[in-house]
Amino acid sequence: MKAGVNMGSPTKGLINRPILASIHTAAFQHNLNRVRELAPESKIWSVLKARAYGHCFDAAIAGLASTDGFALLDIEDARWLRQQGWKGRILLLEGLFHENELSLAQELDCDLVVHCETQVQWLEQFEGKAHKPFNVFLKMNSGMNRLGFKPSEYRTAFHRLHAASYRMHHMTHFANADQLDRQPSVDQQMEVFNQTIDGLDAPTSLANSAAILWHRNALGDWVRPGIMLYGASPTGHFSDIEHAKLQAVMHLQSEIIDIQELAKGDRVGYGGRYEAPDAMRIGIVACGYADGYPRHAKDGTPVWVFNASADGVGLVCPIVGRVSMDMLAIDLRQAPNAKIGTVVELWGEQVPVDEVAQMSDTIGYELLCAVAPRVPVVIK
Amino acid sequence: MKAGVNMGSPTKGLINRPILASIHTAAFQHNLNRVRELAPESKIWSVLKARAYGHCFDAAIAGLASTDGFALLDIEDARWLRQQGWKGRILLLEGLFHENELSLAQELDCDLVVHCETQVQWLEQFEGKAHKPFNVFLKMNSGMNRLGFKPSEYRTAFHRLHAASYRMHHMTHFANADQLDRQPSVDQQMEVFNQTIDGLDAPTSLANSAAILWHRNALGDWVRPGIMLYGASPTGHFSDIEHAKLQAVMHLQSEIIDIQELAKGDRVGYGGRYEAPDAMRIGIVACGYADGYPRHAKDGTPVWVFNASADGVGLVCPIVGRVSMDMLAIDLRQAPNAKIGTVVELWGEQVPVDEVAQMSDTIGYELLCAVAPRVPVVIK
Repeated sequence: MKAGVNMGSPTKGLINRPILASIHTAAFQHNLNRVRELAPESKIWSVLKARAYGHCFDAAIAGLASTDGFALLDIEDARWLRQQGWKGRILLLEGLFHENELSLAQELDCDLVVHCETQVQWLEQFEGKAHKPFNVFLKMNSGMNRLGFKPSEYRTAFHRLHAASYRMHHMTHFANADQLDRQPSVDQQMEVFNQTIDGLDAPTSLANSAAILWHRNALGDWVRPGIMLYGASPTGHFSDIEHAKLQAVMHLQSEIIDIQELAKGDRVGYGGRYEAPDAMRIGIVACGYADGYPRHAKDGTPVWVFNASADGVGLVCPIVGRVSMDMLAIDLRQAPNAKIGTVVELWGEQVPVDEVAQMSDTIGYELLCAVAPRVPVVIK
Repeated sequence: MKAGVNMGSPTKGLINRPILASIHTAAFQHNLNRVRELAPESKIWSVLKARAYGHCFDAAIAGLASTDGFALLDIEDARWLRQQGWKGRILLLEGLFHENELSLAQELDCDLVVHCETQVQWLEQFEGKAHKPFNVFLKMNSGMNRLGFKPSEYRTAFHRLHAASYRMHHMTHFANADQLDRQPSVDQQMEVFNQTIDGLDAPTSLANSAAILWHRNALGDWVRPGIMLYGASPTGHFSDIEHAKLQAVMHLQSEIIDIQELAKGDRVGYGGRYEAPDAMRIGIVACGYADGYPRHAKDGTPVWVFNASADGVGLVCPIVGRVSMDMLAIDLRQAPNAKIGTVVELWGEQVPVDEVAQMSDTIGYELLCAVAPRVPVVIK
C-alpha cells in the first residue's frame, strides 16, 4: 500500500481528514480480462483520460499492464507514461491540438486520431519529416456530430493521408450504444460507417464499453473500453452491468466526525431540506461536494456504514439534507453502533457508484472523474 | 503570468489542450476590500478550503495577502501556508481529526475549531504541553445540525476549555443566511446563540458570505467570507450579488476544436438530446465534465464566444446537446466568424459562474471547487 496527491500519483504525506480513495489494481485486471472475453478477436485501447477517470495513472498502469495500448487525451500524459517505462502503444484520442506537438508525438511514438481538416494539413506538411510514419486513426462523424469527418469528406481525407504514407485506421464513435430507443442507433451508424469505408482497406476502431457489452457486431479491430474498466455502467444503471460481473476499482471511504441528536421537526444542513420526522440520531461524514461527492444527491442516497447495527453488521444509512462543501449527514436510526470514527463507504464495493449517480441524476463517469485532488489515494 | 497543476500551485510545463483557468489576483483584492467595507468592525477569516474553491492556493495568498487570517480544512494546507511565509493567523475549520496532530498544530500556530466532546478531551489532556495556549473557536450547533455542541452542552464545554487556559471564542454557522423563507432563520439562530453565550465573555465568529451581505446584525468579531471572495453568489443567483459589485476571480476559457454542419433533424452528442431544428453550424469546445464543467448543464446554457459575429463582436452561444467527458457543443448560428481556434469563455467575466450553475441546478461553489486538476491554471 502506497500513499500523495490524486494526480498521476498516489498520495504522499500526512493523511489527516479521514476521506480516502483506495484503488484496487486486481479489479482493474479482472475488468480488463472481462473485455478480453467479450472481444477476443480485438486489440484493446484502455482509455485513461481524466487521470484514469479519477483513479490516478499509477494505479491504472499497474492494473492494466496487459492491455495492448492506452488511449489518452493529453500529450503530457503520454510523456509521463513513457517515463514510467510503458513500451506499448499510445493513442491520442483527439490527436494534436497544435502543429508544434508533431515532433514530440513522434518522439513519444504516439498514434494519432485525426478528426478535422486542419490536422490533415499538419500531417501533410509533416510528410517526410517523420522518421517513422504515424499510425493515424481517422475519425468519422457517422452521426454523433461531435468530432470527425462527414462521410462526404471522409474518403478524401483518407486518400490524402494514405498518399502521404501514414498507416491508416478507420475510427468512429457511437452516440447511443447504451440505449435502444435513441437516434442515431448503433445500426444506423454502422451502416454509414461501412458504406463510407467500402474498399478502403484498414483496421477499424469502433466499440466503447457499451458496444463491447451489448453490440458484439460493432467491435472492430481495436475496442476502446473506458467506464467498464473502472467497474461502472455505461448506462448509469448498475443493474445493466450486474450480469457482466465487473468489479468496482475505486472504494471511496470516510468517517463519521460528529453526531447530532435531533428532536422531531429539527432541520438538517443548508436550506433545511430534511426535517426530522421524529427524534433521531444523525452522523456527520467528512465528505462533501468539494471532495467530488455530488451536491445533487437526494435524501435517501445510500451510504454504507460499517459495523453499524447493534450486532456489528454493516448496513446502508441514507443521506439526509443537502450535501455541503466538506460534509454530508446520514440517518443513523438503524445504526446504534455508529459513532465518531466509524468508517463509511461512499461508493465502491457495498454501494455501486452508479447508485449514487442515479440518485444525483448523472452517471458514474462524472462522479469518478470528479474525485477531487484533496482526496488522498492509496493503491492496493 | 505564471503557468503547473491546479493543486496548490499554478501550472508548469506544456499547455496543449486549449482549456485554461486564469485567476485574477486583483479581483481577489477587490472582493476582500468589499468585505472590509461591509464589515468594517470585524476581522476577516478568508476561507481557503478546497484549493481556495478551485482557484489554487498561490493565487489566493497573493490576492488576499491583506486578510487577517486564512481558514482552512486541512492541516497539510496550513503547513504549506507557513512554508510560503504566511505569518498571520490560520484557523482549522473542523479542528483536528486526530489527537496526534496537536503538536503539529502548535508548531504551525493554528487556531482550532472545537466541535465535539472528543476534541475537548484531546485539548484537556494536552493542557500544560502547550507552549502557548491555542485560540479555540468553540462551535455551537444553533440550529443547522451539522457540527457543534447543542446549547445544552455548549456552556459546559466552554468552561472546561476555559479552565484549561485556552483562549476562547464563540462560533456558529448559519443554515439559511442566503434565504428568507427557510427554517432555522438567522434571527432564530442568533437568538439561540446569544442566549447560550450570555455572560461568557469572548470574541465571536458568525457571518459567512451571505450574512456579510444581508445580515449586518449577525457579523461578529471575525467574519468568514468564502464564496464572495471568489466573486460568486451565496444564493447561486448572480442577480442577488449584482449590487455588491464583486468581481469574478476565475475566468475559465477554452477553444473551438471542431465544427460540424448539421442538417435539419440531425442530433448532437450522447443520447441525441438536441435535434437541429434547421440546417445549422455547431462548434465543439474542448471542455467537458472531466474538466469540472457540469454534465447537468441544459441546452441553452450560455458560453461566450469571442470575436463571433460578422463584425467581430463577442456574444453568447448556447450549449446544444449533453456535455460529454471532454467536450461540449455550442450553437453557432449567430456566430459566423467562429472557427477552429476561436476562444470561448465558459465562465468568468462575460458569463457569471452563477448562470452556468443555475442552468445546472446547482450553485457556483460546486462548479468552482470542481475545476479539475487537468485544467491548467495561470495567475494574473
